[in-house]
Amino acid sequence: SPSQFFKRTRSLKPLSLSLSLSLSLSFSNSQSIMVEPANTVGIPLNHAALLRDELDIVIPTIRNLDFLEMWRPFLQPYHLIIVQDGDPSKTIAVPEGFDYELYNRNDINRILGPKASCISFKDSACRCFGYMVSKKKYIFTIDDDCFVAKDPSGKAVNALEQHIKNLLCPSSPLFFNTLYDPYREGADFVRGYPFSLREGVSTAVSHGLWLNIPDYDAPTQLVKPKERNTRYVDAVMTIPKGTLFPMCGMNLAFDRELIGPAMYFGLMGDGQPIGRYDDMWAGWCVKVICDHLGLGVKTGLPYIYHSKASNPFVNLKKEYKGIFWQEDIIPFFQSAKLSKEAVTVQQCYIELSKMVKEKLSAIDPYFDKLADAMVTWIEAWDELNPATKA
Amino acid sequence: SPSQFFKRTRSLKPLSLSLSLSLSLSFSNSQSIMVEPANTVGIPLNHAALLRDELDIVIPTIRNLDFLEMWRPFLQPYHLIIVQDGDPSKTIAVPEGFDYELYNRNDINRILGPKASCISFKDSACRCFGYMVSKKKYIFTIDDDCFVAKDPSGKAVNALEQHIKNLLCPSSPLFFNTLYDPYREGADFVRGYPFSLREGVSTAVSHGLWLNIPDYDAPTQLVKPKERNTRYVDAVMTIPKGTLFPMCGMNLAFDRELIGPAMYFGLMGDGQPIGRYDDMWAGWCVKVICDHLGLGVKTGLPYIYHSKASNPFVNLKKEYKGIFWQEDIIPFFQSAKLSKEAVTVQQCYIELSKMVKEKLSAIDPYFDKLADAMVTWIEAWDELNPATKA
Repeated sequence: SPSQFFKRTRSLKPLSLSLSLSLSLSFSNSQSIMVEPANTVGIPLNHAALLRDELDIVIPTIRNLDFLEMWRPFLQPYHLIIVQDGDPSKTIAVPEGFDYELYNRNDINRILGPKASCISFKDSACRCFGYMVSKKKYIFTIDDDCFVAKDPSGKAVNALEQHIKNLLCPSSPLFFNTLYDPYREGADFVRGYPFSLREGVSTAVSHGLWLNIPDYDAPTQLVKPKERNTRYVDAVMTIPKGTLFPMCGMNLAFDRELIGPAMYFGLMGDGQPIGRYDDMWAGWCVKVICDHLGLGVKTGLPYIYHSKASNPFVNLKKEYKGIFWQEDIIPFFQSAKLSKEAVTVQQCYIELSKMVKEKLSAIDPYFDKLADAMVTWIEAWDELNPATKA
Repeated sequence: SPSQFFKRTRSLKPLSLSLSLSLSLSFSNSQSIMVEPANTVGIPLNHAALLRDELDIVIPTIRNLDFLEMWRPFLQPYHLIIVQDGDPSKTIAVPEGFDYELYNRNDINRILGPKASCISFKDSACRCFGYMVSKKKYIFTIDDDCFVAKDPSGKAVNALEQHIKNLLCPSSPLFFNTLYDPYREGADFVRGYPFSLREGVSTAVSHGLWLNIPDYDAPTQLVKPKERNTRYVDAVMTIPKGTLFPMCGMNLAFDRELIGPAMYFGLMGDGQPIGRYDDMWAGWCVKVICDHLGLGVKTGLPYIYHSKASNPFVNLKKEYKGIFWQEDIIPFFQSAKLSKEAVTVQQCYIELSKMVKEKLSAIDPYFDKLADAMVTWIEAWDELNPATKA
């Protein structure tokens, strides 16, 4: 019950405090402290959490989810879908009081049968299984090394609340607004913005950013090992139609009903020649389909505090083919044109899979496999999410 | 001499202080103070001003330029080109110590002869004459109701210095970078950004923003008379290729050599059916040509403090045809394709003028006149700026 949750949160104060202290200490060893995570101890649980019955939080993990302690005031009201990556015999500890369902590889195999081949193994790309099994309208997905950020006034950022605001107000992809999100309080469309475009379009994706460790590729990590993102940019904006962007899966929310079937994180990790392009792949597909269907993608706020840089040497190994391949993949997606007949996300996605097979297989046989997996993903999605309307 | 300038700045302290005080008082009458202009008293004159011999400041005005007192530490090192709007018999007072040339309507008529018809009268669109007579590589143009803004730490913003930074570092129009300007200190290209695109392209335009009075159209001014922009967004970004934006001429810098001939502010004001679309028109033309020639347009920082909302009733009268017309003009520019043969700004602009005549004249005979004026503008530009290289 909510009152139990609240009691539990209060009793956890000493634990949370020590967690927060040990975090600060470990940071101070490796860098000069420029930004710090917020302290959320004492923030009451938000019982009036927005959309609590319409949103699932998807977390891919291989470890205990202690990071949720810090998120408790903001995330505990929501249902979690935890996708356990790697060894299914390992037990993932979830802090008490959180309502969750957990799927390991055995569960995925059991539920999807042969179609489980489209879900990556030993890679956080497995998170997209959570998108598929959810029955809610909205998804927020977050990595387990992401903590609560502070805004410039020192206030803890309720990232999910900002994502929900982003998703619930329109996007403006057809013309650029120089004062950023025109739907935000204190802002509007500026002089010269066509009135016919001010209604905007539905927002399908809200892409949040990261303080502290920026989401850099391995070469940039190697060149700038000490760079930290300390700049809090107080803006949300629509990514214009026709423009691709690098979508990071670390702090991301979307409307499943509008774009869910395109949020496939591809074939990465175990047995695949590539890693760390799962969210990028999804982002390219999603943006092309959003542009085609007249949906919006927002980026900017909210920030999370990204605690830990991954190993750049390991990353380079995972990424290096992608670094070459993306030079061909980006022009492919930039010129991809979907047909007028593609009016659902599924239809768009199947068209895109055919184009991938036709145009990208020449780069590497991997894309042939990926194109097949895209089709399998849609079949699995439709199996778990049968259409309710004709 | 510089030392004289410095002495003068110091002796002006009491005057500047009283100016600053009276500003604050007049604001407090009409609104709750949320943002204030900076106090620049005591800031030493910047003798090491960037590009002081390569940049002109263009100011259109009908009144005395007292606002320059506040800008003295930042702008006095530069040469000013003042374009006097309206009655040429009026005398414009320029604060002492500023190096300037001033053109009134008689001067424009004398210099351009019959081609002076392309320069608007009784409208700040006349400022583009200043772009034409300048012999420098860069232009910064600012309105005379723009004061020095404060950043969130309270520091006075040297707007011109930020514009110069924007112009001197590349733009990234071909792919969106989620951490904003990748060339800024503390930022970079994020994971998934194609390496082949990281060199960027030359920046032709730097579009700055406004605290306090936002640049709204008359209908929005009427609906939200009290709205003030208090949000300082610490970002600079490239407007993606293929995306149009509403370019405001209030706080704008550009590279004359790269894009100057496209910075024509059209036919506005006296004898014309429309006003307040001068900078918008220039922005649409500039963006289409920048996209065609592979040049970049940046927007965001720097902020100026915009002190005074113009009269929304007067504005509505000037704007109302534009409000209809822009619904056709925007799709026209969105679909405008320049030919491969157009490789100079002038060639691009002449092509665009032909398209305007062909496609927009149906809206109103005004566009036929405007298309002719675009050609006249280029002829006048080339006359005053003869090519130095074959």
